[in-house]
Amino acid sequence: MRPRSPPLEVLSVEQVERILLAAFTILEEAGLEIRSEEARALYRRAGALVDETTGIVRIGRDLLEAALASVPARFTLRSRNPDRHLTVGDGVVNFGPVHGAPNIADAVRGRRYGDIEAFRTILRLGQALGVLHWQGGMVVEPTDVPVATRHLAAYQAHIECSDLVWAARGVGGIQAMDALALSALEHGCSIEDLAQQPTLLTVTNVNSPRRVDAEILDNILVMARHGQCVVVTPFTLMGAMAPVTLAGALVQQTAEALGIIALCQWVRPGCPCVMGSFTSNVDMRTGSPAFGTPEYATAVIATAQIGRRLGIPVRTSAVNASPAVDAQSTYETAFALQAAVLSHSHLVSHAVGWLEGGLVASLEKMVVDAELLRQWAELVRPVEFSDDDLALDAIRAVPPGGHFFGTAHTLARYRDAFYRPLLSDWSNHEAWVEAGSRDATMRATGLWQQLLEQTVPPPLDPAIRDAVADYVARRTQELATP
Amino acid sequence: MRPRSPPLEVLSVEQVERILLAAFTILEEAGLEIRSEEARALYRRAGALVDETTGIVRIGRDLLEAALASVPARFTLRSRNPDRHLTVGDGVVNFGPVHGAPNIADAVRGRRYGDIEAFRTILRLGQALGVLHWQGGMVVEPTDVPVATRHLAAYQAHIECSDLVWAARGVGGIQAMDALALSALEHGCSIEDLAQQPTLLTVTNVNSPRRVDAEILDNILVMARHGQCVVVTPFTLMGAMAPVTLAGALVQQTAEALGIIALCQWVRPGCPCVMGSFTSNVDMRTGSPAFGTPEYATAVIATAQIGRRLGIPVRTSAVNASPAVDAQSTYETAFALQAAVLSHSHLVSHAVGWLEGGLVASLEKMVVDAELLRQWAELVRPVEFSDDDLALDAIRAVPPGGHFFGTAHTLARYRDAFYRPLLSDWSNHEAWVEAGSRDATMRATGLWQQLLEQTVPPPLDPAIRDAVADYVARRTQELATP
Repeated sequence: MRPRSPPLEVLSVEQVERILLAAFTILEEAGLEIRSEEARALYRRAGALVDETTGIVRIGRDLLEAALASVPARFTLRSRNPDRHLTVGDGVVNFGPVHGAPNIADAVRGRRYGDIEAFRTILRLGQALGVLHWQGGMVVEPTDVPVATRHLAAYQAHIECSDLVWAARGVGGIQAMDALALSALEHGCSIEDLAQQPTLLTVTNVNSPRRVDAEILDNILVMARHGQCVVVTPFTLMGAMAPVTLAGALVQQTAEALGIIALCQWVRPGCPCVMGSFTSNVDMRTGSPAFGTPEYATAVIATAQIGRRLGIPVRTSAVNASPAVDAQSTYETAFALQAAVLSHSHLVSHAVGWLEGGLVASLEKMVVDAELLRQWAELVRPVEFSDDDLALDAIRAVPPGGHFFGTAHTLARYRDAFYRPLLSDWSNHEAWVEAGSRDATMRATGLWQQLLEQTVPPPLDPAIRDAVADYVARRTQELATP
Repeated sequence: MRPRSPPLEVLSVEQVERILLAAFTILEEAGLEIRSEEARALYRRAGALVDETTGIVRIGRDLLEAALASVPARFTLRSRNPDRHLTVGDGVVNFGPVHGAPNIADAVRGRRYGDIEAFRTILRLGQALGVLHWQGGMVVEPTDVPVATRHLAAYQAHIECSDLVWAARGVGGIQAMDALALSALEHGCSIEDLAQQPTLLTVTNVNSPRRVDAEILDNILVMARHGQCVVVTPFTLMGAMAPVTLAGALVQQTAEALGIIALCQWVRPGCPCVMGSFTSNVDMRTGSPAFGTPEYATAVIATAQIGRRLGIPVRTSAVNASPAVDAQSTYETAFALQAAVLSHSHLVSHAVGWLEGGLVASLEKMVVDAELLRQWAELVRPVEFSDDDLALDAIRAVPPGGHFFGTAHTLARYRDAFYRPLLSDWSNHEAWVEAGSRDATMRATGLWQQLLEQTVPPPLDPAIRDAVADYVARRTQELATP
């Protein structure tokens, strides 16, 4: 969706420059620890200073800026359904679901470890809710599938359960190669073709502060080499993995993200890259991460400004740290989401279903969040009205103290006049009590059950389905054999 | 509070003009039914066309614009506590509590009719929460007090329970006169002095469409004559009391509000007036009003634009139509509040405690909403940072993969580094279960109980307290005698 108002800002032009300058200084003087020999060789070839003893890579400002110049400000990831391509950049805000949660929770079966059935359930519900622009990646960990072959089961589920763009697992070169192979099968093309018209994204983290592990770098290198979208998200919790100040955390976040995005550009100039933000605070008494706080929202808006300054798309998130699907989870998500939308973040992760600071993917939360996204979609639409909509004649025709229920002006428009909620209940107290006094979270249970019953899988050529299944079966056997 | 970003807008300059022009046309051609002979005489004297048979008053555009020119764009209402004056206009956003609810609800005593004890409880809790800028008016109906003297019990409670600016009952001339007399006692001045330095506001409705009852006009005339702040709020539910289109409802709302504000200016040029908005939609299947919808939020932002164009402060609300204190009540309020704050609405009514479309004042909702207001207060603060906050040295000093918990940079700042929530619980699942698995609404019960126990009444000169009590006793007797 494309918000109608100009992006909300919290930093002055000068403040953005100060943060950028400090980030450049960090990359130039302190550098990043790059724990992959292959990646370090690429940095060295590009002109960065590499210390092989410590693994520290230092990048001069000129070198960095030259590399960043080739990051596309706008690109499209293809879905197999041409109506569902994902446009990144260009003032478009996109929503994706929770990812990375080890647990699934719902009111019927409770809170438990994720499994492949839960994984498919979340994808199917995400597809049915109709509010997402990509289907996410590891929406929940399918812990019943061995780690070595887990990505294969996940990718097969992505292709079978949804026709939205999907994300490869953000760790491991093997995982990236299998994603490319399966995406090529899904799109009926070669892996080389994918590079011209990318289909995948990979959402990778930085082991903040200033370290990137080999398995993440392997993943990034494969994806960048094949021209797929690399989303680089430092994990900069203020006071823990980043300075306790917002400005300091933004400096570190920016340095870490740009250092990796530069690598992607050296691997393949023009590779689509996204600068991620996961800057938030911790509760300084307990060390627990907090999300959806004022600090979180400010970091989101500041990141979007830094991204616009650099011409690099940004990824933020709609997140909360609530232990339950309740008022807290709703206002924390609402504050984070508001910052993401009003700042024109290009990719908004975790926009449905995230709970407990990301430890849980919740089906009820998916429904509540879908209502928020539906309201936002309505809210950012441009206001347009004809002279007839000004209703001069209707106002003149209704006598003082009268009503508009039966007027021609109303009757001609009432059917589609207003937003229709998914979850909200506007009945009066007596009717609500009679219907069982069910609050929004309880009603959400009924809604996801109903949606899962009604939803049908998106069209998929049976030949592609079989080819994907064959590939997954073969690779599962190969990877299971030591 | 004063938001740092420019106000959010949804209408183009041209769209604002089209709505205004249509509103002027309605006032000129269709007019308002003014059900008070005294008020009609004032309109006539000012030059408006008055039809004594129908009670319809028509106001030409030039006449109207000349009257509106004397509305102050900024004014201050005095509290007896000089730290708590209420500044209206000038980019300041102020919050007031729920008002007008017939019922009170809390988890301890359930849902029931309001009484004077509940009235005082809400005022005390509002004072204790520390997030409000005025204490509201009829926060809940004290139905145990006879209607004829109810306002006296309410005003006494206002003076005793809170030192924030309070609102007179928005109906009745007697009620307005008693408010003036009591406010003069509270401030130790004469009623005439009040006119020079206003202390009160009255929040009046229009009997939309295009009708204003005598009791409301009596109230407005007394308040305007004495230079107190008159907030005129048409009740324009789209499809019911106003056209089904947003543009049409805004036209009607604007016409109704401006027609009454002009009257106030003719009564006393320069009288502080506020243009209210209560435009929302109804559920066209059931007729139930909806709040916190995309339509509601758009109407709020549009109203603020119209107010800025005219140089007249605006009043909007943070409202919901939820039957329970849950996710729905939170997201509906959050959407409405966001529109109110980002549009720079000057007075935001119902900002804590409103539930069930205004049929209930809820103590738990007051606590949840207070958390939203506290987050907003933090969020709109300007971002400032020193070079030291950029944390270059701290980032350099922490090794890759290390942490910032024990660094000097963190230790010097961590105590006040972050927003401290009132209600949010960031503990992990196990700790949360051990503490009783209490969701935010359940925790809110404990919080209002604790706040009410701890709170002490604001300072009040015993002589004033006695004078107020004497006045109330005397007038109660007078008004109780037919």
